[in-house]
Parts: sequence; C-alpha cells; structure tokens
Amino acid sequence: MRAARTRIKRVPKRGHYDLETVYSILDAGLICHIGFVVDEQAYVIPTAYGREDDRLFIHGSPASRMLKTLQQGIEVCVTVTLLDGLVLARSAMHHSMNYRSVMLFGTAELVSEQKQRQQALYALTEHIMPGRWAETRDPNEQELQATTVLALPINEASAKIRTGPPTDDAADYELPYWAGVIPLRLQPGEPIVDPKLSDGIEIPVHLEQYLTQRRYG
Amino acid sequence: MRAARTRIKRVPKRGHYDLETVYSILDAGLICHIGFVVDEQAYVIPTAYGREDDRLFIHGSPASRMLKTLQQGIEVCVTVTLLDGLVLARSAMHHSMNYRSVMLFGTAELVSEQKQRQQALYALTEHIMPGRWAETRDPNEQELQATTVLALPINEASAKIRTGPPTDDAADYELPYWAGVIPLRLQPGEPIVDPKLSDGIEIPVHLEQYLTQRRYG
Repeated sequence: MRAARTRIKRVPKRGHYDLETVYSILDAGLICHIGFVVDEQAYVIPTAYGREDDRLFIHGSPASRMLKTLQQGIEVCVTVTLLDGLVLARSAMHHSMNYRSVMLFGTAELVSEQKQRQQALYALTEHIMPGRWAETRDPNEQELQATTVLALPINEASAKIRTGPPTDDAADYELPYWAGVIPLRLQPGEPIVDPKLSDGIEIPVHLEQYLTQRRYG
Repeated sequence: MRAARTRIKRVPKRGHYDLETVYSILDAGLICHIGFVVDEQAYVIPTAYGREDDRLFIHGSPASRMLKTLQQGIEVCVTVTLLDGLVLARSAMHHSMNYRSVMLFGTAELVSEQKQRQQALYALTEHIMPGRWAETRDPNEQELQATTVLALPINEASAKIRTGPPTDDAADYELPYWAGVIPLRLQPGEPIVDPKLSDGIEIPVHLEQYLTQRRYG
C-alpha cells in the first residue's frame, strides 16, 4: 500500500495507510473525482461509485469519453473528499478545514462478464442508499449490455485526515477573536416526491432509515 | 469560453458556458479538486480556493509538491462539484444524482507581488466565511513571504448541472416503488468553541449570519 506516489509528504501526521480507514472514507462518500491524462492534459471528472471488497466500481454509457479512455488501461487517480468542518482561527493564515480524503492510484479494468456487471451495479445502487436495490426494478439484459462498468483495484491508496480545533500562534491566543470549528455534514432535506408517482406509495422503510441516520440531532 | 476540451459531450443539455453560472457554482463551493500531470501520471488533490473576478486563487506552503509543480506553468484542470440530491428512480439503472459542477482548464501563475498576495488571501478567507477577514489577525510580512499563492484564469470553463426528478422508462411508472429526489446540502452543525478560547468572546455576527443562512428551514 505504501508506494511512493501515495506517501503523504506535507503534514505526514495526517496520513493513514490502513485499509480500514481508506474503506471507511470511500464508504462514507458519494462521489469521487477521477483524474486521467489525454494528450498530456489532466482531466478531473466527478462521478458516482460503489465498492465491493478491494474494488471500486464506476459505470456509465459506452459513449462516455472518460470510460472509453480509462478502458485503454491508462493510470488513473481517484480522489474522494469529505468536508467535515470549517476551522476558524484567530489569524487569517491559520484558517483551515477539517476533512477526510482518499487518493487511489491504479488502472481500471472492464467488467465484461454480465453477472459481475450486475453485481457491480448492485454495489453502485446500494452505495447511493442501502436497501435501495431490493425496492427497484433490476437491470434487464438490454440495460446491462448498454452499460460500461469499470473496476479499479484498491491496493495503492492513502487517506488524509484533519480533525480538531485551530492551531494558532502562541501570541495570538490573547486576541479578541472567536475561534473554533463549524462542523459540516451533507444533510438530507425533505424528500421531493416524483410528480409522476402512482397513488398510494408511501416512503419506504430504507428511505426513512436513511433520513433518520443522516440528520443532525 | 467554448473550447473543445470544455465542450459537454454526454447529455449536452446539461452544459452551461456562461460566466454567471460558472461563477455562481465556484462561489457556492468550498473545495476544488486540482488535476495535474507528473511523469504521465494524473494527480487529483483537494484544496480550498477563493475567487476574485476572473481569477481563482489557491495557496499553501512553498514546500507543497502540488504548488511547486503548478508553478512550472503546466496545464491543470480544476473541478468543483456540488452534490444537490439523490435521484431515486423506479429502476436501478435510472438512479442518478442532482449536482452542479464546473470544470476549468488553464495554467497557474505565481502571485509574486506581496499586496496582490494579501488580496488573494483576503479572497480565500472570505470564501470560507464572509465577514471573517475583518475579525481575524491580518497576515504579517513573514507569513506572506512563507505562503505560495497561485492564480488561475477563469477563461476556459464549463458548468454541468442536473436538476429535477428521475426519468424512468415509460413502462416502469406503474411499478410499486417510491421515486423522487432526496435534496442534499452541506449543513453546519453547532459551533465547537476552541477549548483555548479566552473568556467573554461571544459568537460573532458574521458567524451567526452564516449559520442562519446555511441551515435548512
């Protein structure tokens, strides 16, 4: 896991290399940013993902430029960042943010076997919301054929984490400025029912659970 | 603005190229993901940013590998993504997310003049929280010298936006599954006062305003 390109160089105490930490951040995120190179130019594209064991799945249309490029076996960098708080210091220079991030390197592999592709789509759907797969229509054969799924091995990854209060210069602690952390969390609001929803369909239990678990307080 | 590498190819109706849309997304975000190439390998690094007119600022230690690399005038790609909601469809395949994203290409320029650097740090600090700069200690000369600031021109950018309910296949609208959108927003929790805060310092007005504006309901 501890290859040169994943070594945390700045503020090394923030670096973590154990899989448990990496997985926990990947599982808590919803989108990743995928970096890849075309004609010496870097591209960074946000996309949804899912995880099963040591593989990260992304998917999309076979017409997707990103998926077509990644299938060629080029090296990619996948970054997932969770913003946990604003760190307000007494001095402008010591303002910071609390966060958890994972950076992952590797080459993507086309998931060509149909049953494996279905399994990857299960991981992607359950990643959006646990319990969702059981209460949707499964992909049919035509849909499976019209979807490109790529798998990235999670074997060269590092996590970076900042937590806790601001660190000010010793002399600044006497300044009359408020300092502390404003926690941030991606929070669900009230569900917006599809205007075309059939009558008599209540909010399902898995969604109720999601809302309860994800809300503050 | 409408160069080839910023043209939205997949689902072109989601593409936006006007600066007003690009700026509004940049101003609503807190972190960007910076993509750059070293030895043919893409790196994607999350970092804070600020904007002033048509320039995006990033900053950090002169020892930062990313800043040292970007100063060499290489092409970078900066992506800001705001996740606005989970789109729950009746079929697994039509699950999606509502989002606003900006992708920006260009080469970074070192902000070498000290007064301009101070101005950039003002933009970075006010981006974290409006009103913050006035109630912190300004950077001193030593701090300014120990900070690298880079500016990226915002002249080759595109935005991509998805809004609204799921789009299911016609035959699926009769299925007995709940469908709709779960709005998501990065929400502040209760401020965590720095344990070292001097007695008698109340939560400042700019922070009260921030909390009021950012909370649901």
